Amino acid sequence: MFMLDKKSIYQYEGINSIYHDADIVICGVPFDGTCSNRPGTRFGPDGVRTEIDGLETYSPYQDEDMIDYNYVDVGNIEIPIGSTSRTMGCIHENIKSLLTDNKKIITLGGEHLISYPIVKAFVEKYRNLHVVHLDAHADLRSDYLGEKLSHATVMRRIYETLNNGYIFQYGIRSGTKEEFQFARKYTKLQAFNLDGIEKVKSIVGNDPVYLSIDLDVLDPSIFPGTGTPEPGGVDFNELINGIISLKDVNIVGADIVELSPHYDLSGVSNIVAAKTLREVAIIMSKREEHLYE
Amino acid sequence: MFMLDKKSIYQYEGINSIYHDADIVICGVPFDGTCSNRPGTRFGPDGVRTEIDGLETYSPYQDEDMIDYNYVDVGNIEIPIGSTSRTMGCIHENIKSLLTDNKKIITLGGEHLISYPIVKAFVEKYRNLHVVHLDAHADLRSDYLGEKLSHATVMRRIYETLNNGYIFQYGIRSGTKEEFQFARKYTKLQAFNLDGIEKVKSIVGNDPVYLSIDLDVLDPSIFPGTGTPEPGGVDFNELINGIISLKDVNIVGADIVELSPHYDLSGVSNIVAAKTLREVAIIMSKREEHLYE
Amino acid sequence: MFMLDKKSIYQYEGINSIYHDADIVICGVPFDGTCSNRPGTRFGPDGVRTEIDGLETYSPYQDEDMIDYNYVDVGNIEIPIGSTSRTMGCIHENIKSLLTDNKKIITLGGEHLISYPIVKAFVEKYRNLHVVHLDAHADLRSDYLGEKLSHATVMRRIYETLNNGYIFQYGIRSGTKEEFQFARKYTKLQAFNLDGIEKVKSIVGNDPVYLSIDLDVLDPSIFPGTGTPEPGGVDFNELINGIISLKDVNIVGADIVELSPHYDLSGVSNIVAAKTLREVAIIMSKREEHLYE
Amino acid sequence: MFMLDKKSIYQYEGINSIYHDADIVICGVPFDGTCSNRPGTRFGPDGVRTEIDGLETYSPYQDEDMIDYNYVDVGNIEIPIGSTSRTMGCIHENIKSLLTDNKKIITLGGEHLISYPIVKAFVEKYRNLHVVHLDAHADLRSDYLGEKLSHATVMRRIYETLNNGYIFQYGIRSGTKEEFQFARKYTKLQAFNLDGIEKVKSIVGNDPVYLSIDLDVLDPSIFPGTGTPEPGGVDFNELINGIISLKDVNIVGADIVELSPHYDLSGVSNIVAAKTLREVAIIMSKREEHLYE
Amino acid sequence: MFMLDKKSIYQYEGINSIYHDADIVICGVPFDGTCSNRPGTRFGPDGVRTEIDGLETYSPYQDEDMIDYNYVDVGNIEIPIGSTSRTMGCIHENIKSLLTDNKKIITLGGEHLISYPIVKAFVEKYRNLHVVHLDAHADLRSDYLGEKLSHATVMRRIYETLNNGYIFQYGIRSGTKEEFQFARKYTKLQAFNLDGIEKVKSIVGNDPVYLSIDLDVLDPSIFPGTGTPEPGGVDFNELINGIISLKDVNIVGADIVELSPHYDLSGVSNIVAAKTLREVAIIMSKREEHLYE
Amino acid sequence: MFMLDKKSIYQYEGINSIYHDADIVICGVPFDGTCSNRPGTRFGPDGVRTEIDGLETYSPYQDEDMIDYNYVDVGNIEIPIGSTSRTMGCIHENIKSLLTDNKKIITLGGEHLISYPIVKAFVEKYRNLHVVHLDAHADLRSDYLGEKLSHATVMRRIYETLNNGYIFQYGIRSGTKEEFQFARKYTKLQAFNLDGIEKVKSIVGNDPVYLSIDLDVLDPSIFPGTGTPEPGGVDFNELINGIISLKDVNIVGADIVELSPHYDLSGVSNIVAAKTLREVAIIMSKREEHLYE
Repeated sequence: MFMLDKKSIYQYEGINSIYHDADIVICGVPFDGTCSNRPGTRFGPDGVRTEIDGLETYSPYQDEDMIDYNYVDVGNIEIPIGSTSRTMGCIHENIKSLLTDNKKIITLGGEHLISYPIVKAFVEKYRNLHVVHLDAHADLRSDYLGEKLSHATVMRRIYETLNNGYIFQYGIRSGTKEEFQFARKYTKLQAFNLDGIEKVKSIVGNDPVYLSIDLDVLDPSIFPGTGTPEPGGVDFNELINGIISLKDVNIVGADIVELSPHYDLSGVSNIVAAKTLREVAIIMSKREEHLYE
Repeated sequence: MFMLDKKSIYQYEGINSIYHDADIVICGVPFDGTCSNRPGTRFGPDGVRTEIDGLETYSPYQDEDMIDYNYVDVGNIEIPIGSTSRTMGCIHENIKSLLTDNKKIITLGGEHLISYPIVKAFVEKYRNLHVVHLDAHADLRSDYLGEKLSHATVMRRIYETLNNGYIFQYGIRSGTKEEFQFARKYTKLQAFNLDGIEKVKSIVGNDPVYLSIDLDVLDPSIFPGTGTPEPGGVDFNELINGIISLKDVNIVGADIVELSPHYDLSGVSNIVAAKTLREVAIIMSKREEHLYE
Repeated sequence: MFMLDKKSIYQYEGINSIYHDADIVICGVPFDGTCSNRPGTRFGPDGVRTEIDGLETYSPYQDEDMIDYNYVDVGNIEIPIGSTSRTMGCIHENIKSLLTDNKKIITLGGEHLISYPIVKAFVEKYRNLHVVHLDAHADLRSDYLGEKLSHATVMRRIYETLNNGYIFQYGIRSGTKEEFQFARKYTKLQAFNLDGIEKVKSIVGNDPVYLSIDLDVLDPSIFPGTGTPEPGGVDFNELINGIISLKDVNIVGADIVELSPHYDLSGVSNIVAAKTLREVAIIMSKREEHLYE
Repeated sequence: MFMLDKKSIYQYEGINSIYHDADIVICGVPFDGTCSNRPGTRFGPDGVRTEIDGLETYSPYQDEDMIDYNYVDVGNIEIPIGSTSRTMGCIHENIKSLLTDNKKIITLGGEHLISYPIVKAFVEKYRNLHVVHLDAHADLRSDYLGEKLSHATVMRRIYETLNNGYIFQYGIRSGTKEEFQFARKYTKLQAFNLDGIEKVKSIVGNDPVYLSIDLDVLDPSIFPGTGTPEPGGVDFNELINGIISLKDVNIVGADIVELSPHYDLSGVSNIVAAKTLREVAIIMSKREEHLYE
Repeated sequence: MFMLDKKSIYQYEGINSIYHDADIVICGVPFDGTCSNRPGTRFGPDGVRTEIDGLETYSPYQDEDMIDYNYVDVGNIEIPIGSTSRTMGCIHENIKSLLTDNKKIITLGGEHLISYPIVKAFVEKYRNLHVVHLDAHADLRSDYLGEKLSHATVMRRIYETLNNGYIFQYGIRSGTKEEFQFARKYTKLQAFNLDGIEKVKSIVGNDPVYLSIDLDVLDPSIFPGTGTPEPGGVDFNELINGIISLKDVNIVGADIVELSPHYDLSGVSNIVAAKTLREVAIIMSKREEHLYE
Repeated sequence: MFMLDKKSIYQYEGINSIYHDADIVICGVPFDGTCSNRPGTRFGPDGVRTEIDGLETYSPYQDEDMIDYNYVDVGNIEIPIGSTSRTMGCIHENIKSLLTDNKKIITLGGEHLISYPIVKAFVEKYRNLHVVHLDAHADLRSDYLGEKLSHATVMRRIYETLNNGYIFQYGIRSGTKEEFQFARKYTKLQAFNLDGIEKVKSIVGNDPVYLSIDLDVLDPSIFPGTGTPEPGGVDFNELINGIISLKDVNIVGADIVELSPHYDLSGVSNIVAAKTLREVAIIMSKREEHLYE
């Protein structure tokens, strides 16, 4: 089993704490093994890092600065190439180990399937976990071409893993008829956009929440660097405002997935992912402060 | 003369009927011979097909599934390279032949000039045909560099071909002063956007309508894969909603033109065209159902 | 010192006057020497010119045609490569010389730092000059990595250069906390968008105004061809409408900067810059007419 | 288990026989699951097909024409995404089934690991099979990051599978010190180039031979479309002449692997692969004729 | 009919004579109307010009400098888009007119078909003209998809146009069996490479010669920017040395065709074409000197 | 002044020593301030590093492994953007400081001008230093557009800096007539290729030698990722063999310059540079061993 060293592997302005001091741990999961379309999300974590150094640490959206909080980037979880099941185990063990140290975690994908072993580890710690899911795709298939573990089934698997927690889905605009029917019954679905995301807080209260952001929820005009782009998505400001509207929610973990840098030669998709990371990191840190108030 | 075989050349989930059973025939016209800017729309039909297999057949916009209707893709009309006038004849004959079989037709371009011989064939069958034209460019020049037959003159030629039918133009944001003056006099022009497109039905009633979609009506942010991109266009959702607002109109034929795949290395433009095809195909099929009610 | 020849170097439909007759002189400044990120704005002026010939001279946004006014393109100011200070002097001298001939000037960048020597020359002629600044970045640092002259400090230098003139800033969405604090104190800042730009006229009256457009104020979805793209920008129509809302302002000079053509393989960014040039040129010409009324 | 339909899925000039009549069956294996570098060979088979139609069927290198022989393209073996071991089984079963019908087979990759289950099936039919291996990489590791089944171990696995057959290796220019030591002991290694390949015939006589062509044996100047390009390879003519020098060898099967089309935007790599297929197909067919003499 | 102005449209170091003084006239023919594969050679002439300014005027291959001779670039022949036959006439008239002024001519393509009307004009002036043809393709078809005028038939048409002149073909590596048979009978064919090109002089003596260089004679590794790349071509030095070996031949006209800049994002293909132009221009000028000796 | 920390900033298999133990120090100089063509060599050092991890440490060319020697990568020298003269001073001081610690140094460019301050520092330590220069360009101009410090003048400046040392130039194929005349008089010039490079040892004996490799000495087919590509260069094997033929020369320092990664979308140029680094590093280390024999 490949285990993370829990050391600060990469340092940038704003993300330069040591593991012991960090409230929030950032790690990459360069796995794209079940991608059925254009692969390449394995390059996602490094795509984000390419742009972090050039990014301002200050967010004018939140009037907050990353340098006022403690973040550490522990590098990538090593992937046993060619085996999905071993990969699932490996991710699960690593996340469990970080949770044991009482860290909040932001994972950089990689494909969306990585959310499954991550959420499993979170549910083991937080029994009443809810999931907020931003995505173009429902990802609710029972199986995909016979496989239970797939980027197209990940939210179904997560649905089966949660206890009483809700799945809130936003931005969904692609799926089979069956997936939409399932969503209407069993998840809290807002198709096409992020309308109503500000109401999550009133539903979940102080319950722990996991935030899963498949960046293809964005329109491919601003985020072409992904395996399965879906025209008709939200724009960057809608995404950022949606994220910020969750600032009072008790987010204990998050992932930002499906960045495939090689499909965007302009490099803009990397920047989009890096700025999303900044805003997510800050809302998760601010929450920390709120708790101490 | 190159005539289509009227066989199912390509089969995908959702487009897998045989010619005899199909209500709607899809064919490609890979012609870009009068393109005066960046050529390459000859690759348009195959660009759409590249993405059809990965596309969900279910439209969450309409809550309808392509698998519930009968479509056939009969492949591309072969083009006599180097001769515009022979090409015009060839397209005209093929479309006439399909119309004789009482098919509705969706043509995949190719450059916009192909609409001229197609509409001519439709007018021969449907004397009172109207045309709904979505485009960034007015295409209303009398001639272009001395040529009567050009992508820049196509709507002028179509105007001369119609009997009493109207031309409704939406999204136009580029042209000469003369073209805009002509449009204000002789066509029903909505510049810049698709506002008011939902009123077409009340004007045309049950008259037959031909829908011509030059995909450069879209903003180049979402559709860079075209020969003459014009910033300031509509976004994908405006286009889809505009199309769906025509769902009660008696659309007997349509074209989707000006996709030039090689100019969009991300592949997003191909996906945009494929999804547009799905929505157009469904509204043309649903209409069929309405008639039987 | 490299001085412009003041001859018509490039001729296109709509920009084909001779220097003597031209009200507005267009020139390029292919300098990217302080770019700290992706260089290449040196190719900006030629990137614009690549598209000018294919561009309609008629603006449907303003119902005006470039052929009704007199523009001349005198080519590029030659840059002494490798020396920022000599470059600053060279730009300053050339602009002064054009101003001596009582020309209005539109400069095509190049990086944003070029605005500093240009504005300096304008202030020498127009003591009470104001600046309208459209940009994603505040550009208000006191220094950048120890350098006083940098694309990141240009508006700070300009601030120090103006006498009583205001700096109006629109669209700013990236900067340090200090820059935003400075802006709130010393400039008229509208972050994120162009809201309120139509009120500039009522504040400045007939005072001379310099308009500096860093095209990265646009969202990178429509303008990826730039060195430091910032997601979350304005769309093309907002930019054009913002510019047109300045049509009664006494704009005596303008620049359009930070186009880096090689980072946009679709060529759309070049077209965006060329259309922006058309709209800016027309509002500066129309104003001329207003004065004679 | 996904089994091929044994029907002519794709037809082009020169490859348009039906399964029953075909001497040589062409099929694709779009698997890139153990790729540890840049993925995308899953698009390889379709990359070849994109160019086949435009390719002349006549080879001036051999003065032979594909239209004089019988080839069929039965499409792609479907891959159970995410599981290397199930994929191995699936490939093995399909190849066995084709061999039962006494076909010669040319497989289009996909990554190099696919050669392992293919050769296994061939050895089951041809006990004394030899392998001729053209590649930049030795692929002789015992395991790769703990995995026994990997593109980096495939020739080691094949070595263990053969009975008395030789492995002839040509063009190898990258590997660990251990791999080169292993090769010097256990395979017939010609590093860097294809020198001596014409002597294979004299060693193997009429024994059955499997030809495995990893196209990265070519220099990346002519074949950049691959996951792990290695400068210093052979040029196209060396490869073609090397292949033709095997024309009297009893080649019963072949693969052409590691084409990753998305990494070569010029499309040249697809053409290289298609021409390689033509030459391989012809030498395998001519041999057939020689036997009847 | 669009006739050239016979003025110096573009000026660069080394190509800055006026028409009257120039021994050699350079003009562009941006026609790609019969291209059956990837279009875009219409951008060829401007692709060459993009690089001419950065090119050294001195050739170390010949120890000669362009500044010692008189060249003029008169710009592009305007093309009546959409009509091959009118285009042929237009090219023919323009070339005839330049020949009337006793100029040598170097034409920049555009597709190869342009050589036909050019050679026709040359034969009208030089009855005993020979043609030296460098190309990957034989271009000797009688017709192509029913069309007599096509890039694939151009040398056949030229063969029919010449009186007693020979066609020397070098580098040919693609064609139908029939084309190669025709070539073996009726042209002087050297397949695959340029071997023996130095013997042309001894065969033609002082007869006038037209040199037609289809740049796809080069290997696509060094020249990917073309519509139909053919692996296995000559390298740059072979081409340059081949050209220089013709330095005592009485070359009265030349063309450099099939550059399609958009298919080579690195820009190298443009540079290759520009350097080829330099070497061709110098050998045609030096010959001039030889005559006066 | 920005001084290096002399710490191991990046670690890869084969380059993982600490500064104190390392015989050879690798550092980057991301400067492209005098580039007059396409900029971007500032990304060169990181372009090399992107590929180092995937590169085998074992060289089959030399049968040597990097893991048997001690290398350290101390990261990049920070550049004062916008000032060439300050940059020169900064590089000079850093190199002097490394030389004081008795290190051999391999510098990764950046543009070629960086060799000037580096060689100056070496000459201060090694009075009788010779320079071996591999390049497409002579770089021997006295000044370039009035500037003394330029990538086009660097070897002239170095010539003025050396005491009795020779400059050996190989591969030169572009320059002015004056540069070639200068070279024939004052340097040991081998134009076009690397012929005779194996004789350097017999001329210089045990004198210290600096090796400057401008990677554009390679043909752009294998190395398009550079600012001024020159067709007609050497291939990869010629370069590697040329380098290895210097293995008994006392090389005390080297640079590998002019990699501009963004101009090669395939990534091959980065790999070429990384493999060149491996071979240079090994010959500089082996020499060390020879001395102890």
